[in-house]
Amino acid sequence: MSMTDFAARNKTSSQAAAEAALARYEQTEDLIQAFAHLDKEQVRRVAKDQEQSTGPLKGLVVGIKDLINTADAPATYGSPIYQDNRPTQDAAIVQALRAAGAVPFGKTVTTEFALFSPPKTRNPWNLEHTPGGSSSGSAAAVAANVVPVALGTQTAGSVVRPATFCGIYGFKPSFGALPTEGLKTISPSLDTLGILGQRLEDIRHVFNALRTTPEVPHILLQAPLRLSFLHTPWWPDIATDLRDRLETAVAHLQADSSQFEVETSDKDNAFGALTHAQQAVMGAEVLAHLSQERQHHAAQLSPVLQTYLDKCAQTNPAELIQAQSTIDHVKRQPDLLFGNADLILSAAALGEAPTRDTTGDPVLCRAWTALGIPCINLPIGFGSHGLPLGLQVAARPGQDDLLLEAATRIAHRLGTLTIALPELRS
Amino acid sequence: MSMTDFAARNKTSSQAAAEAALARYEQTEDLIQAFAHLDKEQVRRVAKDQEQSTGPLKGLVVGIKDLINTADAPATYGSPIYQDNRPTQDAAIVQALRAAGAVPFGKTVTTEFALFSPPKTRNPWNLEHTPGGSSSGSAAAVAANVVPVALGTQTAGSVVRPATFCGIYGFKPSFGALPTEGLKTISPSLDTLGILGQRLEDIRHVFNALRTTPEVPHILLQAPLRLSFLHTPWWPDIATDLRDRLETAVAHLQADSSQFEVETSDKDNAFGALTHAQQAVMGAEVLAHLSQERQHHAAQLSPVLQTYLDKCAQTNPAELIQAQSTIDHVKRQPDLLFGNADLILSAAALGEAPTRDTTGDPVLCRAWTALGIPCINLPIGFGSHGLPLGLQVAARPGQDDLLLEAATRIAHRLGTLTIALPELRS
Repeated sequence: MSMTDFAARNKTSSQAAAEAALARYEQTEDLIQAFAHLDKEQVRRVAKDQEQSTGPLKGLVVGIKDLINTADAPATYGSPIYQDNRPTQDAAIVQALRAAGAVPFGKTVTTEFALFSPPKTRNPWNLEHTPGGSSSGSAAAVAANVVPVALGTQTAGSVVRPATFCGIYGFKPSFGALPTEGLKTISPSLDTLGILGQRLEDIRHVFNALRTTPEVPHILLQAPLRLSFLHTPWWPDIATDLRDRLETAVAHLQADSSQFEVETSDKDNAFGALTHAQQAVMGAEVLAHLSQERQHHAAQLSPVLQTYLDKCAQTNPAELIQAQSTIDHVKRQPDLLFGNADLILSAAALGEAPTRDTTGDPVLCRAWTALGIPCINLPIGFGSHGLPLGLQVAARPGQDDLLLEAATRIAHRLGTLTIALPELRS
Repeated sequence: MSMTDFAARNKTSSQAAAEAALARYEQTEDLIQAFAHLDKEQVRRVAKDQEQSTGPLKGLVVGIKDLINTADAPATYGSPIYQDNRPTQDAAIVQALRAAGAVPFGKTVTTEFALFSPPKTRNPWNLEHTPGGSSSGSAAAVAANVVPVALGTQTAGSVVRPATFCGIYGFKPSFGALPTEGLKTISPSLDTLGILGQRLEDIRHVFNALRTTPEVPHILLQAPLRLSFLHTPWWPDIATDLRDRLETAVAHLQADSSQFEVETSDKDNAFGALTHAQQAVMGAEVLAHLSQERQHHAAQLSPVLQTYLDKCAQTNPAELIQAQSTIDHVKRQPDLLFGNADLILSAAALGEAPTRDTTGDPVLCRAWTALGIPCINLPIGFGSHGLPLGLQVAARPGQDDLLLEAATRIAHRLGTLTIALPELRS
């Protein structure tokens, strides 16, 4: 969808868009269980009000991850502890969405506190498989064509991973580029809002309407983009079908030397060190920010979360200091990972979505979240089980606009700009 | 000493200054044991070379704490593990001293890794009492009139505390205002170089010659200085003689309403929270940065240090995250401690120097080090045991120049600008 298409939609009816989403919700929700809460009459009322809007997101319905407060619905954060939690105020990002003319569409399922406990939500490509997490409902609702766009959050890999498992775009902007007031804080140095969507242009449009950072309006890519292809230390753990697909994609980009220069990265060790550092910092921050829940509501925490928190409490404080220092060091010197490149290409996950007993492994996303740099999942076809595969692209600090422009060119070159959506048979 | 006096000294001979210091060293060192290393012939050679200098510190001899590397002497860091450590390069601050024309004068005693183990050095005012730590030798050498100025470092209270116990000025500038390359790192978010001296003007002159931050050349204090007198939560633990002295000093400043407005602070709780946060952060960072020594040379660590490190290892990672967050919060909002004030007055220590089995308690210095704000000890007379007492003045972030100007005015008003030096009888 081009900007022109979006402008056309902008003239369409909020109510028509909401009715279409509600109809598709009715068709799909029993199968995929993407929503924690949806009040249809409220959606209709808001859509009617927004009919008057002249904002840039007029006519767009947007799923809201249930880690994000809205004034008109419970915010459970995926935990029974918060089943009766009714925020009195919209999160800043929801205020911004409404101000831009969009219609917030329900609360999409998050895993328990955006962590690792598998949710009820199913992968629209295969209901026995996970949609990934923690933005499980947002990814599934977009892939099931209920909403074109949804908000997620990423602390380890919670936007990019569900996006790749559901075969959609998932963009984690720079840390702080979208306002996080009014979210349940899990790990304040890592928690980042992101956008999942069917079309890159939608994501770009939504990001530009909501961002706190200035937009760079015209990215001109006259010289070839310098791409660094990073295997990462987990290359042997990546499924063969994905490894083959990535190498084919890289070769395809390389063949277009007027647009792309591709080198194989030798920064695997730095990526590995950052990944482990992210785990230590996240563990300690989660432990600190769920301390009330752990102390007073332990019985309502899942066994998976209890085990995780117990393990976090074992972290030696010196390891944590070392981990913070590792991250700060690379933040100050991005060349340690980027070398001379503009962008880093890598796998977005270890392969297709696994079955529903886990939400998959965020190991290939942790380093980028730790650095606070923008990254995105691009769908690049399907694996041997018929589930989607993804290419992850990361950009240097603050280069959100370059990343979105480059992602479009890469997807165009790979012929994957328009993604497939599942037929959704139960 | 005014700037004019300093300029006069600047025309005097480096060699004459060095010979005077060497003579005084001969008279006092057996008593106070301020030095870990001193090579007299080398001092004479350097002084001869510096005779050619036209730098701003020409004619000044400066003691160097043995936590700071010099290319011409061992750097033991106060530990037998490093007894044969011979750095190949001067620390950045020593390079800057030499470039400014000063003569580095020996390595002054530091406590073991600038921590809590009592050193051999004695307090020139009473040899049975501690000079404080960890810049023990620097404070004692200045108070004993061996050198007019010495370099120290502060991670908790290691400049201000020995200065107050030895009855001299001790200035901890803003974090990073003096370059720390070439020091043994103990706690990288806290370690700060400082200057101990007999005269405020000397400290100012040395600071301006070595600083990495731009000097604010003319501080004009037309309106009255707004001073906040902070009792701190440790007021009941402060010795009666010091409490009385502080209240008299505050009343004396208050009486000069054209120069000073003094209010009593109500920010004791915030100060207390910061103090505890500093302890947690320092403990974890020290544990990380002494991990090699702890792992491979445990037998050469003092029992005091071993016990301290064992305790640090017990810190819960969530407490550490909470402590970092507490410090960051006040860093972003200094008003939480300063209110409307320009400067905060408080005790520099709990009273006079204790006997030599400890180096005293840095509890009243930790919060300022955590915030990275400039602070200074001003000598304000003597306690009931004939040992010095001190007033601590802290300024808002980056206000080093205002602090030094204000300190001069406060000391002038209190009649303590020219300090007494001990007779040094054994």
